[in-house]
Amino acid sequence: MLKNIMDSVREKSPIVHNITNYVTANDCANILLACGASPIMADDLEEVEEITTICHGLNINLGTLNCRTVESMLLAGKKANQLGHPVVLDPVGVGASVFRTKTAFCLLEEIQFDVIRGNISEIKTLANGKGTTKGVDADIEDVITEDNLMQTVTFAKEFSKKCGAIIAITGAIDIVADSEKAYCIYNGHQMMSSVTGTGCQLSAITAAYVTANPKNKLEAVVAAICSMGICGEIAYNRLSSMDGNASYRNYIIDAIYHLDGEILQNRANYRIL
Amino acid sequence: MLKNIMDSVREKSPIVHNITNYVTANDCANILLACGASPIMADDLEEVEEITTICHGLNINLGTLNCRTVESMLLAGKKANQLGHPVVLDPVGVGASVFRTKTAFCLLEEIQFDVIRGNISEIKTLANGKGTTKGVDADIEDVITEDNLMQTVTFAKEFSKKCGAIIAITGAIDIVADSEKAYCIYNGHQMMSSVTGTGCQLSAITAAYVTANPKNKLEAVVAAICSMGICGEIAYNRLSSMDGNASYRNYIIDAIYHLDGEILQNRANYRIL
Amino acid sequence: MLKNIMDSVREKSPIVHNITNYVTANDCANILLACGASPIMADDLEEVEEITTICHGLNINLGTLNCRTVESMLLAGKKANQLGHPVVLDPVGVGASVFRTKTAFCLLEEIQFDVIRGNISEIKTLANGKGTTKGVDADIEDVITEDNLMQTVTFAKEFSKKCGAIIAITGAIDIVADSEKAYCIYNGHQMMSSVTGTGCQLSAITAAYVTANPKNKLEAVVAAICSMGICGEIAYNRLSSMDGNASYRNYIIDAIYHLDGEILQNRANYRIL
Repeated sequence: MLKNIMDSVREKSPIVHNITNYVTANDCANILLACGASPIMADDLEEVEEITTICHGLNINLGTLNCRTVESMLLAGKKANQLGHPVVLDPVGVGASVFRTKTAFCLLEEIQFDVIRGNISEIKTLANGKGTTKGVDADIEDVITEDNLMQTVTFAKEFSKKCGAIIAITGAIDIVADSEKAYCIYNGHQMMSSVTGTGCQLSAITAAYVTANPKNKLEAVVAAICSMGICGEIAYNRLSSMDGNASYRNYIIDAIYHLDGEILQNRANYRIL
Repeated sequence: MLKNIMDSVREKSPIVHNITNYVTANDCANILLACGASPIMADDLEEVEEITTICHGLNINLGTLNCRTVESMLLAGKKANQLGHPVVLDPVGVGASVFRTKTAFCLLEEIQFDVIRGNISEIKTLANGKGTTKGVDADIEDVITEDNLMQTVTFAKEFSKKCGAIIAITGAIDIVADSEKAYCIYNGHQMMSSVTGTGCQLSAITAAYVTANPKNKLEAVVAAICSMGICGEIAYNRLSSMDGNASYRNYIIDAIYHLDGEILQNRANYRIL
Repeated sequence: MLKNIMDSVREKSPIVHNITNYVTANDCANILLACGASPIMADDLEEVEEITTICHGLNINLGTLNCRTVESMLLAGKKANQLGHPVVLDPVGVGASVFRTKTAFCLLEEIQFDVIRGNISEIKTLANGKGTTKGVDADIEDVITEDNLMQTVTFAKEFSKKCGAIIAITGAIDIVADSEKAYCIYNGHQMMSSVTGTGCQLSAITAAYVTANPKNKLEAVVAAICSMGICGEIAYNRLSSMDGNASYRNYIIDAIYHLDGEILQNRANYRIL
């Protein structure tokens, strides 16, 4: 099944509209191309509705959020909802400032998201109205382990039920849940956290996978997260003794470029809870 | 001749002012350095006229266009015209929104461009007032082939005559035309379309080449496009089995860094129509 | 001592708030991760004070300066001062436009910087109210050589005394000075100037080093500059015949990722004046 999901992305080559930050926009564009999708980055109020109309899916990312783009996010999101285009939210750093938190809640109220992907601190902030976000990384006291896994799965399912979006919490263990079913994913490598924007990149390809697989959204998110994790593993194995996080960044995108559906299927490491 | 043009860029090291998008700005800066030029990125209304004054050429790129920078583009373009600095337009995604189309027409009316470089859909939109732009890639029905080559060359010459700029239409076959003469260029590799911003990068170095060769602008554009295409070929040959589009991105810039005038001269593959 | 300074960065993993340009933001984030720090990029008026509060240090960079972010820089800088967080200024291109010069002087008046790092033309502009800045590179007539070294050291000490910040002037020879003491650093490779943003990256890690070593700020700046220079040397030695400035960019960050305190200590090449 994961194989078919990935193949659909390459066959359909969905155009994904990204309203995203200037730190990782280039990597997001390249990883979308790597997975077989086509990126457009556009964030001005004047054009976001038209741009989202010619695209097939929308990815909203709160990194380097600014006053100018909040309204653009709202307009694009509502338009995508009207058109039935999948919409992904990456609530980067929500909880770290009132501005980000207010913006995220405003977006949640006005837009029906298909997927929300963040780290555990960000998702807790969205679900509870407050969290322990300290910057853009998950707080240490929030980290998902085997000990709190069931509890976090229950939390994710409940939040999914409440907001209607698939919830993807990524970290050492990733959880993808709708209100009924949760996947716990064990792919990936800890060195991925030393590359800026691997989360942003994952949200971008999640938008592509879901857009190309509208009838299997939950599994599409799982496929996207497994793809990223497996490519993190492949890229890690490719590192020479002098390669560091900059080369690793390139190798992860390279691995997505070459990822084969069979390999995805075989290496995907998850269980259903 | 192409050799001399490239040598001039390295000798003169022109400073190129870029008003460009945040997706590919880093690659544009690095490829300008790679070809021997010096980049400045500056887009605020308050300073663009001064910045363009201390530079030698201007590159205006409509990617991630926003309300704040439209006025900056106009001011910088007019100032560059006054100073006799070459100005290049990269009308990224024109036709994809009314905002981009209106902005492009406004720029065409107020600024005399030396070169306009885009894909066929973008150039058709500029020439005809409407096009089939679907995002940032050329529409499939517009693609240049040997069958419609003469027709496209005629179109490019006529548009050049009308707007006074050299028209560079890039794709599988590239066309560079003024009102009298057209070059059809066959360098490049299709994998270049899987790297975000190869078009933006090409526009940036086109500005550098034209700026360093004010008396041979048409051939300078040809040299820039051949350089990019040849480096796309060299970089492709360098790819290992694990390298994908991220490494390819780096290798293209690396190849520009090492490109030798003799190699450019010998590998350039074009005919004049 | 340099070893201890670097080890502190890896142990404390300071969070550095960056208000910076969109050209090099990605490289700045990755090099901060490479050295063991944690980056946040945030520039909106609405949130910069809160963001800087949850961080440990602040890095203000004037590249792609715009009207929207000037106020953000002021607010964040004042808040960081209140909290006792180290603040670094990278006055990119100051002197190239009235807007940049005015902004820089305004920042100098309102914020107490711990470190100001720029090329000699930029620092002269800050110290003298005018300079010979021609773009983002140092002007040739300003370049530091052994002949004018003592004179430049005296200038740096005096400017440090006047403004209360450590002055770091980087170029072929780097000078780091407070009012009493100056280090002249000979690490680095000239090819670093063919990579966009090596200066921005250096300012970012300088903020991290100083933040992790509040009691040895002068030596922390020296350690940051030696680290960058040594990694420029290591990365240069790693270049294959086809590698150019794009690969070099990656290798420099990779080298920072692997840099060992012993190597830093042993390869640091400086004298005290």
